[in-house]
Parts: sequence; C-alpha cells; structure tokens
Amino acid sequence: MKLLRVGPAGREKPAILDADGHIRDVSSLIDDWDGPALADAVLDQLRKIDLASLPILPAASRVGPCVAGVGKFICIGLNYADHAAETGAAVPAEPVVFFKATSAICGPNDNLEIPRRSEKTDWEVELGIVIGKQTKYVRDEDALDHIAGYCIIHDVSERAFQLEGTGQWVKGKSADTFGPIGPWLVTRDEVADPHALSMWLDVNGEAMQRGSTSTMIFSVPHIVSYLSQFMSLQPGDVISTGTPPGVGLSRTPPRYLRSGDVVTLGIQGLGDQKQLCIDA
Amino acid sequence: MKLLRVGPAGREKPAILDADGHIRDVSSLIDDWDGPALADAVLDQLRKIDLASLPILPAASRVGPCVAGVGKFICIGLNYADHAAETGAAVPAEPVVFFKATSAICGPNDNLEIPRRSEKTDWEVELGIVIGKQTKYVRDEDALDHIAGYCIIHDVSERAFQLEGTGQWVKGKSADTFGPIGPWLVTRDEVADPHALSMWLDVNGEAMQRGSTSTMIFSVPHIVSYLSQFMSLQPGDVISTGTPPGVGLSRTPPRYLRSGDVVTLGIQGLGDQKQLCIDA
Repeated sequence: MKLLRVGPAGREKPAILDADGHIRDVSSLIDDWDGPALADAVLDQLRKIDLASLPILPAASRVGPCVAGVGKFICIGLNYADHAAETGAAVPAEPVVFFKATSAICGPNDNLEIPRRSEKTDWEVELGIVIGKQTKYVRDEDALDHIAGYCIIHDVSERAFQLEGTGQWVKGKSADTFGPIGPWLVTRDEVADPHALSMWLDVNGEAMQRGSTSTMIFSVPHIVSYLSQFMSLQPGDVISTGTPPGVGLSRTPPRYLRSGDVVTLGIQGLGDQKQLCIDA
Repeated sequence: MKLLRVGPAGREKPAILDADGHIRDVSSLIDDWDGPALADAVLDQLRKIDLASLPILPAASRVGPCVAGVGKFICIGLNYADHAAETGAAVPAEPVVFFKATSAICGPNDNLEIPRRSEKTDWEVELGIVIGKQTKYVRDEDALDHIAGYCIIHDVSERAFQLEGTGQWVKGKSADTFGPIGPWLVTRDEVADPHALSMWLDVNGEAMQRGSTSTMIFSVPHIVSYLSQFMSLQPGDVISTGTPPGVGLSRTPPRYLRSGDVVTLGIQGLGDQKQLCIDA
C-alpha cells in the first residue's frame, strides 16, 4: 500500500493511494498514520478493505508528511561509498549516526525555508525507513520485520551550521522545513529490494544527484539492528539512510540553495517531491 | 508551582505538589503536563485553584518524568567552565549542541539500565529548561518568557559509545533510561535566579559532583535564544544545560556505573532523584 496524509498542515487526514491514483480517505478507519496504525496487524486489516468503498479526496490536496507523531528522526551519515569519496571522507567503520529535530518535518512539496544567516543550504535525497514495531537489541536477520515501509526524505542541511561552528552536526540539520518526508509511506511488502532503487535530485531542472541505493555501505537491516544496540526504536520513528553523490558542498565550485530555487527529487517506486525555496 | 506526574509508566496523572507536600491530582483540570498545558494562560488559571479542593494521591506513588510528549530533548555540552577544564577541552566559543533520544526519558527514581556491552556508563547532573511556548529567532532579552520552568535532568552517558566509535555523540546519550527528568517541573516564577543553584550527585553515598549553575558559560536565556536561530522550539521541548565537574570520565582513575550502584542527585529548589543501576 501507498499511505499518505492530505490536508492543511497539522490537520491532515490519513489516506491510501489506490491503483487508479485516487486518494482514498481512511480517516473513518484509523486516526492517523502514526505509530499505532503502522503495526502489521492494523495494516493487514486495511489490506482487506475495498478501497473503492472509501471517499475520494481531491487530487489537488496538499500532501503532508507521510508519518505523524514521529518520535525520533534519525540519520545515517556518509553511507554511500561514492558520496564518502566525493567528500574526501574515509568510508566509516561503523554507521555514523545523528539526529534531526522532529520539528523540521514537513510535507514533500511544502516551501523550503532558507534559514536566516544561511549561506550554505544544501540538498540530500535519501531513502527513509519507517519503523513499525518496538525495536531493541534486534539482530540483522530479524530487522526487516520491524520496518513498516519506506519513503523519500530530503535531508536538507546547512553546511556552515553543520560543519563550521562548534560541536555536533544537529545545528545544521534541524531548521523548520529541513525534513520533507513523503509523498507516500510505501509498505515494505511493495519494496522487493530496498538496495536496488534509483534516486535523483535536480535544482531548477538541472541534474545534481544521480545514484542508487545499491551503493549503500551499511544495509537497511544492519542500520536498524545497529541503532537498536544504542537506543530503542518505536513505531513511527524515521531513519534517513544517507545520500548518494552530488550534494552542493562537493561541487566545484560549491553550489547552495537560494530563495527562488526549485528542488525536485525522487526515488524509484516511492514517488517524488518538489520544493520552492523561500527566505525564513 | 511544582508540577509532577505520578502513576505507572505511560499512565501517569498530572499533579501539583502543595505547600504541605501533598500530591494533588489535577487530572480533572488538564489532560497531562504536556506542551499545551504549559502555556502561561493555562498555568495562570491553575494558580487560582484552591489545591485543598483536589484529591490527594498516595505519597508512595511512582513519580514519572515531569513533562509528557517531549518533542525534542536537546543538550548543551561543555557548558561549565570548571567541567570544561577537567575534561581538558577548551571553553567553546559557541554552545555545543547535541540531542538525546526522547525514548531515553524516564522517571527520576526509575531503575537506570546499563546498556549491553557498556563498560563506561557515566553520570551528569544538569539543570533542565522546559519550553512553554513556540520559540523561533528569539532574542536573548525575550527568551525567559519562553520558558515554562526548570527541572533536574540526569544526562546519563556511555563514554565509549559517545566518544570512541564513529561520528556523533548521540550514540552514547540515547539508551532507554538515560534521561531521568524530574521529580518536579518548577515554574519559572519560583526560580528567582537559575544561575545561582547548587547541584550535587553521589554514587553509593560518595560525593562525585558538587557544583553550581553560577559557573555556566552560556546563560539560560542565551541558550534558548541561540538554539532558536537553528531550529524552532515547541512547548514541552526540554533543554539540558550541561554538567559541573566530577563526572566519572574525568576521575583518576575513571569510574563508571555498574549494576547495583545507586546514584542520587539534586539541584537546589528542584528536588532530588535516586536511581538503582541494573543490567539492560
């Protein structure tokens, strides 16, 4: 299933995209696409519903982030061999983990706010994992069962805030609108191999990132298993798994986002996103 | 007011500690001590209530974390001049910011789980700030108005996970029970000067940390203002403001927590905490 949330920010309704591309309102069946609704048992029940019996929401509806009530927004850094190479960083021995603020989460086509005093707002198309059940000290071979599904995440990053100030990366990862998520949460049964998805990102129609999840260093199940050794994961937690080559920081000369720029991005089978950059 | 939450984990009731030390049940008036309940207008209404008219909850009730529905658990590192000196770190030019997982939050007297494979679980008594209203691009001189109140936070840390692996500190800060918060959220009107509070932490009754918020490098209003340049803050967000000297990592030889150890800690006017260490 392709799960989505449509409506004004903060008042989105849960929906399912049907085979004909209609947005079917499931708000009579579940409260929202949050942790409790992502349990296997709930999703299995919903699979039995005749979607044609549910109301159609307008195709022009705003699409919100595809998960509500996200408890943790976790990211893996430098997880693509070809991206690590372009940044000059060594391939990490273990996953590099950092957090984004959950308040950065927004819809896939919402405006992207360039923070005040930002000179280096950059893009990163990433495969997102959405956790479906409580996860703590889980083995690699059991980890896929803990995943509800996958989505596109744009891990927007301010490089000066991230890298040139004191301390940790979180300062450059957490501004409002720095986490467009969606359009769809595609349930795991519909993603045959999360390590064989092409991904792309353009700025003003010009190709910037071209890659594939096949060049990930640490696999999807290993990331989930690894994280679960350091913290517990709850249904609705989101994990962004790193970006392929072509970020603005690594270009010659570097290139960053400005008000008026339009970013489009997508991942095979997971839809696409489009953001207009504006000043915060 | 001293706000607290009592009852079994996940089913705590909101309460207020009255002048006689009775725990008064306010669950008939508010849903919980979460973001919406921390607005000035809500707290002002509650100040007018005759607490003696409300039911008393048993004094032996378990105390939960004093805030519910925390969206972000933000920490400031190396924010005490005397602690920076003991770690050998330079005094930072700007606040060092990192996040803990919100899933690490627990009650002030809950058992402290030593993670599997941990050899270096360490303690840090810290002054916590609880945000009371939406905060974005706020100036230092306006920042105090955005604070609902203060509490004790135990920023438990696994030093090997934090410092010896790849990347960022979050791996050593986020295990379940690594964030005891409370016992009380003391509203800001009852804390005359957050920069003049003595603080202490003992392990098995032996003094480990003795300090005062007077040696903070970056002040409470500056921390709130500074963070708000990089991310928006929401009511119910929690900020831990750094620790004074005496952590286990800085002792000669270093000393870390083991199953069976008992940690007690407190901050002047904010109550105290007690945790028994157990194996995860």
